[in-house]
Amino acid sequence: MPRPGAGHNLDGMPAAHAVRRARLQPLVAAAGADAALITTGVNVRYLTGLASSNAALLLPADGSRAVLATDTRYELPARAGCPDLDLVIDRFIEPALAAWAARAGWGTVAFEAQEMTVERHLELASGPDGLILVPLGHAVEQLRTVKDEAEIALIARACEITGQALEQVRPLLRPGTTERHLAVMLERAMTDLGAEGPAFDTIVASGPNGAVPHHVPGRREFAAGDLVTVDCGARFEGYHADMTRTFAIGAPAPWQREIYQVVADAQAAGVRAARDGVLATDLDAVSRRIIAAAGYEEYFEHGLGHGIGLQVHEAPIIGYGRPGRLADRVPVTVEPGIYLPGRGGVRIEDTLVVRAGAETPAELLTTTTRDLLVL
Amino acid sequence: MPRPGAGHNLDGMPAAHAVRRARLQPLVAAAGADAALITTGVNVRYLTGLASSNAALLLPADGSRAVLATDTRYELPARAGCPDLDLVIDRFIEPALAAWAARAGWGTVAFEAQEMTVERHLELASGPDGLILVPLGHAVEQLRTVKDEAEIALIARACEITGQALEQVRPLLRPGTTERHLAVMLERAMTDLGAEGPAFDTIVASGPNGAVPHHVPGRREFAAGDLVTVDCGARFEGYHADMTRTFAIGAPAPWQREIYQVVADAQAAGVRAARDGVLATDLDAVSRRIIAAAGYEEYFEHGLGHGIGLQVHEAPIIGYGRPGRLADRVPVTVEPGIYLPGRGGVRIEDTLVVRAGAETPAELLTTTTRDLLVL
Repeated sequence: MPRPGAGHNLDGMPAAHAVRRARLQPLVAAAGADAALITTGVNVRYLTGLASSNAALLLPADGSRAVLATDTRYELPARAGCPDLDLVIDRFIEPALAAWAARAGWGTVAFEAQEMTVERHLELASGPDGLILVPLGHAVEQLRTVKDEAEIALIARACEITGQALEQVRPLLRPGTTERHLAVMLERAMTDLGAEGPAFDTIVASGPNGAVPHHVPGRREFAAGDLVTVDCGARFEGYHADMTRTFAIGAPAPWQREIYQVVADAQAAGVRAARDGVLATDLDAVSRRIIAAAGYEEYFEHGLGHGIGLQVHEAPIIGYGRPGRLADRVPVTVEPGIYLPGRGGVRIEDTLVVRAGAETPAELLTTTTRDLLVL
Repeated sequence: MPRPGAGHNLDGMPAAHAVRRARLQPLVAAAGADAALITTGVNVRYLTGLASSNAALLLPADGSRAVLATDTRYELPARAGCPDLDLVIDRFIEPALAAWAARAGWGTVAFEAQEMTVERHLELASGPDGLILVPLGHAVEQLRTVKDEAEIALIARACEITGQALEQVRPLLRPGTTERHLAVMLERAMTDLGAEGPAFDTIVASGPNGAVPHHVPGRREFAAGDLVTVDCGARFEGYHADMTRTFAIGAPAPWQREIYQVVADAQAAGVRAARDGVLATDLDAVSRRIIAAAGYEEYFEHGLGHGIGLQVHEAPIIGYGRPGRLADRVPVTVEPGIYLPGRGGVRIEDTLVVRAGAETPAELLTTTTRDLLVL
């Protein structure tokens, strides 16, 4: 394949993108900049609709027209989808936008320090345009936490496909099937159901492998007495789903039933607690407390969940002491687990979206039963 | 899925990795550093064998033991595969290695400015360890251009799978098949033949879409009179293949035969010219001249090829005026094309490896016929 990489797409929501850019504008001014240079791919997509491996956006703080730069590969979708943006077609998108900023008199430009490499920053800062670069912070990532209904519909569709695909491959949950085979067939089912592809590398962890939260599916064959954890999600028009279910191959042992029940209780409590206004740390504590009370605290070694949208893991992160508060239209996962080294594990995970008002329960987007299925 | 991402693996060549680290050592000293902090994932894998989404290597210039940092998810493969490295298990790998460097008295550390973000650089540079950070440059990328025979064998296996998979799906090259269906089935065939997955998103560009070098396969159905360009590759144990063939659906028109022949001639000449000691720019010129002589220069708008290995695109880049010289054991692609807007295109691409001596032709790793197949 010729350099550079492939892949483009265009969301069909130009009005929504203009609203998002308008919300960013005061944050650019607050950063002390005349314009923001957005270089994180998903942030460019979020603000313009253009999905490209080589695109950047220059957004002025004063409300004048923003400038999208991309290369010839994406010229067609950019012209069609972004009629309200100025367009620069250039293989070197960042120098091209720096020159534009200089010409426009935008001398101070806010950049995304969490994405830009030291090398590229040096090129821009020492370039001929004399720009002053200041950090924008995670402004776009913060805006992205609260979704509009069109985004929620895409996540819901990704979740629906995920559930249907898992249902389709359930007959493979029997002794003799390998972890890898189930993972491959599950990803194929998602694609056949209309997904762009899997949202991430599917995790299938059977028997003792279930003790490894991110086990890579291998040649191990399912056997009677296994718990099998399947963590999967579809990607649909750029938006991600994330769901985990744990199954029993044959009648589960008492210890397996016990940890399953503890995780199921912790997960249900977390889902109930995921409401408008709740602190991320408090939500994490709700589920963690139940696992701790059952004596398994040290075996739940990761955070309770994370935001989800154009990335499978995005703000707010729930756990690890991370700040943040849930709010209306914030989709998150709730995914407690117990992992017993050498024995096995259980994780149960849903994607859900928080709705307005502390009295309103979150809306579950993944709906596959959470009862322990014995196969 | 719990944060952070999944995926690990371990190459079975610890001795080779020690050799690679020894080759890097003088380059660390030349950068004026006491040690190098390697943070680019494929570079860490190249130097240690550990494939991880969260690992970094601290390599001292004085030949003392190097230090690998990763998190608990990769502890097992790191312990098993890297017995000659000191190991730090920590979720925050860069601060952990910075502290190690400070304790060891390695006050000046060379870093990879092309990978490290401004944000992470600031954290390290202003951290409690008082380290002085200097750029290492693309030292590891340069080392990686020349492969050892074990690496070449993995690329060759990836290429073999690619050819077999394309052969398997050839019956789908008929009117009515969609681009997307062929791409999906081709990627599945590669996986079924033992690939980890596709090396990149497969390109299938039919009819007028063939004029777009990186066309994303869509719902267009093949029709009689189409040229169909298929650009695909398998990934095998971390190493990539890259091959393009163009097919004709039904008898090709004279203009199609003509551009096919020009590209085939340009490609064959490029393959013949890809030899030890040749400048990358000269190699690009060999193929480009043939296309220009036929009057199509403006319709060949990308470089002739690129290095390939742990990344699908790596040094040396052939074209775009990029410097570099071919040498023994450097695998590259040769992939000229002609793209006629609104009509269609042709690209033919092989992965090959340069062998020692200016008289020795390169070894072709992709072997599917380059004759125009009329289907």
